[in-house]
Amino acid sequence: MISGTTSLIAHVGYPTAGFRSPRIYNPWFAQQGIDAVVMPMGVERPLWPDLIRPLFRLRNIIGALVTMPLKVDTAALVDDLSVTARIAGACNAVRATPEGRLQGEMFDGEGFVAGMRRAGRDPAGLRALVVGAGGVGSAIAASLARAGVAALALHDVNAGAAEALAARLRQHYPALALSTGSTDPAGHDIVVNATPLGMNEGDPLPLDATLLAPTSFVGEVVLRQEPTPLLRAAIARGCQVQQGEDMLFEQIPAYLAWFGLGPATPAQLRAVAQL
Amino acid sequence: MISGTTSLIAHVGYPTAGFRSPRIYNPWFAQQGIDAVVMPMGVERPLWPDLIRPLFRLRNIIGALVTMPLKVDTAALVDDLSVTARIAGACNAVRATPEGRLQGEMFDGEGFVAGMRRAGRDPAGLRALVVGAGGVGSAIAASLARAGVAALALHDVNAGAAEALAARLRQHYPALALSTGSTDPAGHDIVVNATPLGMNEGDPLPLDATLLAPTSFVGEVVLRQEPTPLLRAAIARGCQVQQGEDMLFEQIPAYLAWFGLGPATPAQLRAVAQL
Repeated sequence: MISGTTSLIAHVGYPTAGFRSPRIYNPWFAQQGIDAVVMPMGVERPLWPDLIRPLFRLRNIIGALVTMPLKVDTAALVDDLSVTARIAGACNAVRATPEGRLQGEMFDGEGFVAGMRRAGRDPAGLRALVVGAGGVGSAIAASLARAGVAALALHDVNAGAAEALAARLRQHYPALALSTGSTDPAGHDIVVNATPLGMNEGDPLPLDATLLAPTSFVGEVVLRQEPTPLLRAAIARGCQVQQGEDMLFEQIPAYLAWFGLGPATPAQLRAVAQL
Repeated sequence: MISGTTSLIAHVGYPTAGFRSPRIYNPWFAQQGIDAVVMPMGVERPLWPDLIRPLFRLRNIIGALVTMPLKVDTAALVDDLSVTARIAGACNAVRATPEGRLQGEMFDGEGFVAGMRRAGRDPAGLRALVVGAGGVGSAIAASLARAGVAALALHDVNAGAAEALAARLRQHYPALALSTGSTDPAGHDIVVNATPLGMNEGDPLPLDATLLAPTSFVGEVVLRQEPTPLLRAAIARGCQVQQGEDMLFEQIPAYLAWFGLGPATPAQLRAVAQL
């Protein structure tokens, strides 16, 4: 129940119709007695630079969840950017310090890593392949680097995007073994599809699934109820897999903690979500 | 239940803790299946000029409820001001046209007039005394003029404020008989206390209640559960009275209609409000 004491988490982006966060966060807040709400705000790109600073001067704002098409622009609009957000070149969360400095963070990849850990697989020291070096692929690569993978192979249909991501990673993680250009999953403990391939039934696979080792952990960013063709192939080969939606729920505890509203587990959040 | 399709009514002002609108509007919207919410936003005066235009470029904003300390400032920030808002010198509601022009309206006085009418008393042709020419007094005077009173007597402890209000009324209602300087209710069909006197038990009466005629309609802006000393005196003399809270609920249907979310009656709103 919203009242005069309720704090605001602005969920900014456009179009808003597909926003899922209000139906995940708000039932959780209600159940926990946390006096805050996630409110969708339809923000198109030209508006965001004019809105972001006034928005954060609201006396009852906790932070912003940032989604398409604003994630990349946001990285240039905040004052402080985490290493993960800097490598990703994008933010999906903003908060303000008491002095009014805007801090940007990127949790898209944290969900992937949190999900792996919850599945009993620690990325530290492992070798990872990330196919797709766009927004979410960059975020996952950044989070895997932060989690201590030993090697990262990057691929994008736009070779320059993979090279640029590798260069950003190298700056912050000089000891990390980096390579680009191949989608061959052989020899990789972690294999991630961070392309949109799998969204539609007729899509080609993002990589040759027959080369997957059964010991590989295979993750997917495409948000679908049922496993994508890649995940089905990986399951058939005996791989442990992580669905796109797992990643979504896994990142929310990180968001909540960062906003000072934790703790919560993905299972608790799923139990009350009204999707 | 807030979702990605929910529209926003921003309730702006500071401090927000005492805001009642979320607990009146939101239960009504929920009951009616109107996919909109009133969200309090803590806006201090220096922020409002920077926020108002970006805020109205949100794709899912319906309008703003404007309260202290922003009502007067808002009148200078919008593009189009209704006559009532111009006389009041203040706005408590803002909406945008499809072309992005900001329109300001003032409903504080409309609630008073709507309540009178609902009580079976039409202000048209009557003589009214308004004691207190501040924000709400000016709004009530403007709404009474709009409703067609024949004569308006205005008083304020600051004589200049009453004179200035009379001058603004004269501009827009040249046929209206205006006078200033007296709190004597004799000969007035409508008597309004628009001062804060009555908020605290020890306050002096805003006018000499022994001069009230039993036929006078006596209204009060002070928001208290029980009748104020003035209203108790008026009731004792046989007058019909209107409480401050009546005015509050009476103005909401006007707000809702103006935002394209009507109709509603005060009784319907009271029945679902969670105050």
